[in-house]
Amino acid sequence: MPEISKKSGSIPSSPIRKLVPLADAAKERGLTVYHLNIGQPDVPSPQVVFDALRKCDMKLIPYTNSAGNLSYRKGLARYYNNLGIDIDESQIIVTTGGSEAISIAVSIACDEGDELIVLEPFYTNYTTLAKICDVTLTPVQTDIRNNFALPDISEFEKKIGPRTKGILICNPGNPTGCVYTREEIEQLGAIARKHDLFLMVDEVYREFCYTDAPHFSALKLNDLDDNVILIDSVSKRYSLCGVRVGCIVSRNQEVIKTALKYGQSRLCSPALGQYVAEAALDTPKEYFAATKKEYIARRNLLVNGVNEIPGCFCPMPQGAFYAVAELPVKDADRFATWLLTDFSYKNSTVQITPAAGFYATPGRGLNQVRLAYVIEQDKIRASLECLRKGLETYPEK
Amino acid sequence: MPEISKKSGSIPSSPIRKLVPLADAAKERGLTVYHLNIGQPDVPSPQVVFDALRKCDMKLIPYTNSAGNLSYRKGLARYYNNLGIDIDESQIIVTTGGSEAISIAVSIACDEGDELIVLEPFYTNYTTLAKICDVTLTPVQTDIRNNFALPDISEFEKKIGPRTKGILICNPGNPTGCVYTREEIEQLGAIARKHDLFLMVDEVYREFCYTDAPHFSALKLNDLDDNVILIDSVSKRYSLCGVRVGCIVSRNQEVIKTALKYGQSRLCSPALGQYVAEAALDTPKEYFAATKKEYIARRNLLVNGVNEIPGCFCPMPQGAFYAVAELPVKDADRFATWLLTDFSYKNSTVQITPAAGFYATPGRGLNQVRLAYVIEQDKIRASLECLRKGLETYPEK
Repeated sequence: MPEISKKSGSIPSSPIRKLVPLADAAKERGLTVYHLNIGQPDVPSPQVVFDALRKCDMKLIPYTNSAGNLSYRKGLARYYNNLGIDIDESQIIVTTGGSEAISIAVSIACDEGDELIVLEPFYTNYTTLAKICDVTLTPVQTDIRNNFALPDISEFEKKIGPRTKGILICNPGNPTGCVYTREEIEQLGAIARKHDLFLMVDEVYREFCYTDAPHFSALKLNDLDDNVILIDSVSKRYSLCGVRVGCIVSRNQEVIKTALKYGQSRLCSPALGQYVAEAALDTPKEYFAATKKEYIARRNLLVNGVNEIPGCFCPMPQGAFYAVAELPVKDADRFATWLLTDFSYKNSTVQITPAAGFYATPGRGLNQVRLAYVIEQDKIRASLECLRKGLETYPEK
Repeated sequence: MPEISKKSGSIPSSPIRKLVPLADAAKERGLTVYHLNIGQPDVPSPQVVFDALRKCDMKLIPYTNSAGNLSYRKGLARYYNNLGIDIDESQIIVTTGGSEAISIAVSIACDEGDELIVLEPFYTNYTTLAKICDVTLTPVQTDIRNNFALPDISEFEKKIGPRTKGILICNPGNPTGCVYTREEIEQLGAIARKHDLFLMVDEVYREFCYTDAPHFSALKLNDLDDNVILIDSVSKRYSLCGVRVGCIVSRNQEVIKTALKYGQSRLCSPALGQYVAEAALDTPKEYFAATKKEYIARRNLLVNGVNEIPGCFCPMPQGAFYAVAELPVKDADRFATWLLTDFSYKNSTVQITPAAGFYATPGRGLNQVRLAYVIEQDKIRASLECLRKGLETYPEK
């Protein structure tokens, strides 16, 4: 039997997905499983998306431009312009989801063995994508007890070595829900400038900011045109996770030229996805206002509810639709598994994501979980009941 | 300015795409450009695809299963079963186009520095995808004067070394249009078995075989369940290049398990693409019969026409929708460029793809071009006129 490559063997299974078979088994046993585990919004997509699909009069579905459809890139440029970001279509490469945008950005910045600085905890898929690119993630630690605030700049400088090629952050953050202020982004920009690093900012949750100040995009930084690579996606913005359309935005033309070569290697991004993403650009403002209002209500319900459970601690996130909570258990992975295999309350249970996979430092985050508030408020209430009851009866505390 | 990674810098621009800006400029000057350059079929997709799109009643477009929608995988298994291939849905991972299927298959088989044997000339994107994976393509040469026939098995054995992990072929072939017989595929299977290699077979042109014998899939080989990895796609079969849906099929469960980890790293394949690809499974047989008839007529027209031009030589391909032709020029790249920049006939010109990018051996294929017969017969006639006139007046012969 031919052997699987060593690199492939070393790729971790997704910590977000690994409990899915256990949840499926619980459902087969007749249980209702409440999903706090995955960032799949339940909010309907804007109506313009489905209107466009029904009007679709293509005769065949051909390859699109490897850089993305020109009309879509022009529309995206207008979207950024409306946010006060000065960008044109030549500075955008459409990608197959935010995932591809991340892997292309990492590949542009790093050769095998190079390093990227990340804020820990970070989006777990960064680990997998970095592993595939043979890149090391160097974590700068943040602390749940300090609401995962951006550490002092000196903490970043301590981690910068000769192989460091960039800083990769998510703002608003997954899994923390942290929203970095203009001042914080400017501090990161200053480090990137000083050490000639790429500053890669994943802003896919831009529309979900619950602070008073508007979201500050890294593309608004001055004198950093060569350093900033924006990672974006329509997945969360319009509840279009399945269409697989994202983009890379940069004013560095070498970055764009190189991203296009990766784009050509896979021919093009999904044509139907780009078609509906372009239609979604006409989403009325009221859609976002209503969505935001709903997420704020859910967040408050979930976070306050968790904090009322004895032994739990959950800081209030300011953006995205995630919260990280500390539970009164030693090993949240075992507890999350137990909830699906050995627990039920009112014929239901709850699926949560162990947070250890969001950390690179061994031993960190073991008693934490990521909770996504992308289900209706009634379901959040039921989830909280299951969580409370589960913690009360869990034998391994 | 931060530096682009060395690996990214070494990725070649696509030889298929690099003339596109020149063709665009020719169009801007008012010329009609006939496209023999790219494998983008002009045949309409089956009607069932657009019927399904108009009926689409999703409320949002969520992530799908990282392995591909279960109902689509079951449908795909039935598609293979109907071809006499014994496969079930657990042996299929849906990918984002055939391109992703190739890069996942290469990554499963190879670590950095490993080697894959390819039949030269080969699909040019293999070069790019191998470069991204740091894998070396070791070419076994075939000869246009021998209709690119499979060389003797000893030629393969000469190339197998300690780093050789697999054989990657395309059947029917891009760019040659070669269709390998059952006996030839069995010979390749025997080498794979003997040397414990993966046999990766890209069969995306399966429906376009113009020989009397039916297409023989590598999945029909006996005792090679651990070795065979099939690469497939709906792009060409249903004129759905833009939907980006392909798959990896293997009876080797380690391969499937590993492919799923790559699948999880990018979350899922396009949901809308899978939705229409599933609808396309109900395409009536008449669709393929009509398409095949049209391609055979175009092939005969193109290949006979090229052979009538003094100094040209073009073997008759038996499958796909490409032909490789030898032209009476030293450097087909310069000629193809000249056709777009300095030539016109009846206010039109023709775009052809220089074949050197389909070879790994330096100096091979310099006087060859790939021609795709995916345009209407009248346009093929006009292309042939341009090609003849261009060769007559080209100053650099």
